[in-house]
Amino acid sequence: MLKIAIIGFGNVGRALAQAVHASPQLELVQIYNRSAMAAKDYPHITTNDLSALKPADLYLISVSDRSVAEVAQALAFENRLVAHTAGSLPAQVLGTRNRSGVFYPLQTFSKTRAVDFSTVPICIEAAFERDLATLEACARALSNQVHVIGTDARKMLHLSAVFVCNFTNHLYAIAQDLCKQHSLPFSLLEPLIMETALKVREVPAASAQTGPAIRGDQKVMDAHLALLTNDIHKQIYTLLSGAIQEHGKKL
Amino acid sequence: MLKIAIIGFGNVGRALAQAVHASPQLELVQIYNRSAMAAKDYPHITTNDLSALKPADLYLISVSDRSVAEVAQALAFENRLVAHTAGSLPAQVLGTRNRSGVFYPLQTFSKTRAVDFSTVPICIEAAFERDLATLEACARALSNQVHVIGTDARKMLHLSAVFVCNFTNHLYAIAQDLCKQHSLPFSLLEPLIMETALKVREVPAASAQTGPAIRGDQKVMDAHLALLTNDIHKQIYTLLSGAIQEHGKKL
Repeated sequence: MLKIAIIGFGNVGRALAQAVHASPQLELVQIYNRSAMAAKDYPHITTNDLSALKPADLYLISVSDRSVAEVAQALAFENRLVAHTAGSLPAQVLGTRNRSGVFYPLQTFSKTRAVDFSTVPICIEAAFERDLATLEACARALSNQVHVIGTDARKMLHLSAVFVCNFTNHLYAIAQDLCKQHSLPFSLLEPLIMETALKVREVPAASAQTGPAIRGDQKVMDAHLALLTNDIHKQIYTLLSGAIQEHGKKL
Repeated sequence: MLKIAIIGFGNVGRALAQAVHASPQLELVQIYNRSAMAAKDYPHITTNDLSALKPADLYLISVSDRSVAEVAQALAFENRLVAHTAGSLPAQVLGTRNRSGVFYPLQTFSKTRAVDFSTVPICIEAAFERDLATLEACARALSNQVHVIGTDARKMLHLSAVFVCNFTNHLYAIAQDLCKQHSLPFSLLEPLIMETALKVREVPAASAQTGPAIRGDQKVMDAHLALLTNDIHKQIYTLLSGAIQEHGKKL
């Protein structure tokens, strides 16, 4: 049984801890959290002392991107397998005292929603075959979707994820603001959101494009701009409508 | 049994025809299509002659926004109930020769995907109680979600739909382009797309916001901008990241 230690207990660390804990093939030996309080579901295995980490087959560092290097450097052991969970960092950021790897779950995690880890694509990377095998065993114990992906490809995936998740979520936020301002139930838009997300699995997004921009319906677009009161919303409307028209020309 | 005629056989008209045809409470008496060829699933009831429309309890005009008024004016009968299916037009655009209404299905329709109409919110509007009752009877025969919504509110919903559907779909298109350019399978992003769409049902989008912008991680944002080669993509990245940070300040 692979012994896993999780360093960092934010949204990713918490989701990983839960999934590792639930897997019969993995043993969650320790959680490091700056504040020992927060990892309260696992009080007996939580530490807030980096130098007190127990032996493990794999240390997963899931702290914020800018703290990964610092945390890796603070580890008191050497020549063990340490992987970070960041989409945009190379494995090298972990230094050379330990054997480094990447274990990037391509999903958005939050405190308030449990994610079914078995469907989460996990992108792994390591310099040594043996370490890749360990990462793969851990990943396969958690998910049905495991991919060996190099640093450059992973960075592109992470960038793409910003578009389909972070930016999309902000468009949802704008629509929620608009609905709230006009006392409309946002739930009316939920079937549309779901259909848009489902359709892209089957039809290339460019061919599925609908709406006033792709139809070149300037009258509707002008009316929409007149309805928007927030200047940033207007800018987003104009830029994305133009981008849709520009993209449509290439088809 | 309500007799329904559908005028226009684009994506909306086709989806409506299919749903009306399938409903035991409705009778699809006619389809008007400029080219009689296209409505080939219903050859016996298709016409391309607007003056040849049979009597019906409700005529649904589902042509492009800019053609609605012209088509309504070309109808050869009077004092019947005629409704359009556009999100952004008032009922008045239909003129006064017939009794006008709105029957707006808040969903995105395409040739290649069948939509379950029972989950589609239908927004209805009419000047007369009796007409509203007819529209409601038709809508309830098709969907479990029927809402009486005035013109201004409907316009806001339509505008919100552009953000959550048309603009979101374009973000998907950008990610598909990025994946294609770097020979990465877009399917890796599908669980993320789905989770983002599901999460907004439970958690307000602003609180669910993740990613480099909301964390203020300028290093990752700069790296992302350096990876983008398309100038419009760079502009979208910068504008939406700024919007996320601006919106985050208000929370």
